[in-house]
Amino acid sequence: MGYPGAMCASVDDAKLNSFIERVTAGEQRAGARLIRLIDDRDPLAFELLQRLYPHAGNAQIIGVTGNPGSGKSTLVDQLIGAYRAQDKTVAVVAVDPSSPFSGGAILGDRIRMRDHATDPGVFIRSLATRGHLGGLSRSTNDTVTVLDAMGYERVIVETVGVGQDEIEVVKIAETSIVVLVPGMGDDIQAIKAGILEIADVFCVNKADRDGVDRTIKDIRGLQLLAGPIAQDEWEVPIVRTIAPQGVGVDRLVETVTRHRAYMAAPGSTLKEARDREREAHVLRSLARDHLTVALETALAATEGGAEALLDKLVARSTDPYTEAARLVSAVVEVLRGEEKEA
Amino acid sequence: MGYPGAMCASVDDAKLNSFIERVTAGEQRAGARLIRLIDDRDPLAFELLQRLYPHAGNAQIIGVTGNPGSGKSTLVDQLIGAYRAQDKTVAVVAVDPSSPFSGGAILGDRIRMRDHATDPGVFIRSLATRGHLGGLSRSTNDTVTVLDAMGYERVIVETVGVGQDEIEVVKIAETSIVVLVPGMGDDIQAIKAGILEIADVFCVNKADRDGVDRTIKDIRGLQLLAGPIAQDEWEVPIVRTIAPQGVGVDRLVETVTRHRAYMAAPGSTLKEARDREREAHVLRSLARDHLTVALETALAATEGGAEALLDKLVARSTDPYTEAARLVSAVVEVLRGEEKEA
Repeated sequence: MGYPGAMCASVDDAKLNSFIERVTAGEQRAGARLIRLIDDRDPLAFELLQRLYPHAGNAQIIGVTGNPGSGKSTLVDQLIGAYRAQDKTVAVVAVDPSSPFSGGAILGDRIRMRDHATDPGVFIRSLATRGHLGGLSRSTNDTVTVLDAMGYERVIVETVGVGQDEIEVVKIAETSIVVLVPGMGDDIQAIKAGILEIADVFCVNKADRDGVDRTIKDIRGLQLLAGPIAQDEWEVPIVRTIAPQGVGVDRLVETVTRHRAYMAAPGSTLKEARDREREAHVLRSLARDHLTVALETALAATEGGAEALLDKLVARSTDPYTEAARLVSAVVEVLRGEEKEA
Repeated sequence: MGYPGAMCASVDDAKLNSFIERVTAGEQRAGARLIRLIDDRDPLAFELLQRLYPHAGNAQIIGVTGNPGSGKSTLVDQLIGAYRAQDKTVAVVAVDPSSPFSGGAILGDRIRMRDHATDPGVFIRSLATRGHLGGLSRSTNDTVTVLDAMGYERVIVETVGVGQDEIEVVKIAETSIVVLVPGMGDDIQAIKAGILEIADVFCVNKADRDGVDRTIKDIRGLQLLAGPIAQDEWEVPIVRTIAPQGVGVDRLVETVTRHRAYMAAPGSTLKEARDREREAHVLRSLARDHLTVALETALAATEGGAEALLDKLVARSTDPYTEAARLVSAVVEVLRGEEKEA
């Protein structure tokens, strides 16, 4: 496979291997370059990731997700500090699916790197999105593979928002922290059922604000609504934090560690189940991304041009159901053409 | 095409047409049934939608999106009231991509229908999600087609959250309202750049709260950051509302009407551009959804079973890049098999 359009034969094998060596040695410039290739969907990234993959699989991957305004970034900075105090190396990938400006993400990196600029044990990267649905999940997975293979002991995946796309993105994490803040609780929709699916730990941040008890009660209510927990199941704890002062951060780290141990306890199948889910997710992201790219290729190659097709649809001289069926046939041709080339 | 597995030949043509007649006559029970078929991904829905399509295209479609807790539902209820006062019929499709409980959506319908239960000019439906990424957008489009063909003059698409999936969902709207509330503005990430992409009108709800000026300033700042607006471009207005008291709702409706008129003004290409975007979006949703279903079919049919494949991935005896390439080849076989059957 590869990103369609890959021409791997022309790449010097020894050069690739020496680049991989630099990445696995933890060289930040090499890692940053590979992440940029991933984010840019460069064909070379696929070849490099295939070689890098056997070196990954050792990091503890932690997801941190929550709505804008929940103070997530400050909390992640505190987590970095706590792990550094334990002498663990930490990498962060900040995923922002709703920002169309890559510049914004890079600016965010710079602001946040200031605090850790002199610490070689910390590495923070942002993923800009290319407005590409399945692609974001794939890019995140690939980036985590890089950070993991670079040797970072903790990899934090931070996402903005708690929608379906963020849920997709944090599926790669071993432990997911969902960050909430008081004062959102007076709406039926304030705490979304979807977050129960991913939360291993709830963190109620800004816990010095009014309404913290109400928020905790709402979470508990939602947990009850979802039904009794099974015998082997992890009871999702709620940790209060005040991120700017670091209040509760140690307890949060301790809870994440406890979750990891619980999952991997002798006789428990939880870790195995989670590992399988993660692999299924990574596999689907890769395949889906490839199909999406083929779809775009097929659309661009539509007879008479994609624009003429849109003209007909706007004029309602054809219907989208018929045209989508044609498009899927064209996707098959694109994929078969790729297979023949390979 | 069709939902894979469709066996349309066995369906009685006259019965389908008589059902279509009931839908286009605006019969709510028939409409509700078709929407349920869509949400359940019933193969029959495809056949019906193809026949229904020529009857749609007259409704004014309005998107309303905003984070949980923004008071969106109350605002939508007020919009319904305002349009009813103008003697316009109104349908609402409430899309909740992060709720895994279909029961929750139905409960929401019931609560909200109470106010309009005796009004035949109002029709509210919720779409539950099946945790199916591309599928949600497709289901929304198909549901809007039904409501449009039923003869509703205004169709409101309401989504929870402002992530990438919601942005996808409201691409079908002619005018999109993004609802914000004061008090989220003290975070770099509080107002996401992504919403600029979709907002035709900003609504600052709960405008009696502290921080309303700050929120408006933040929106303006974000607009400035995005660069100067082009000559023909619509300058996105900001409307203040207090939904429970109905404050600002008339101005909101008026602004939506003004946006529609602006887009369709003689000499302007804005409406045409938006129409093309919508058709491209609908086409992509349908095709992508078909590919996703084929992917799942291929995965389930993996030699030795999908579970055995996951075992190997968890054990790292293979890598996801190689396996995803195999999976894409299997998708091609699935799609070719479907073509032969058709």
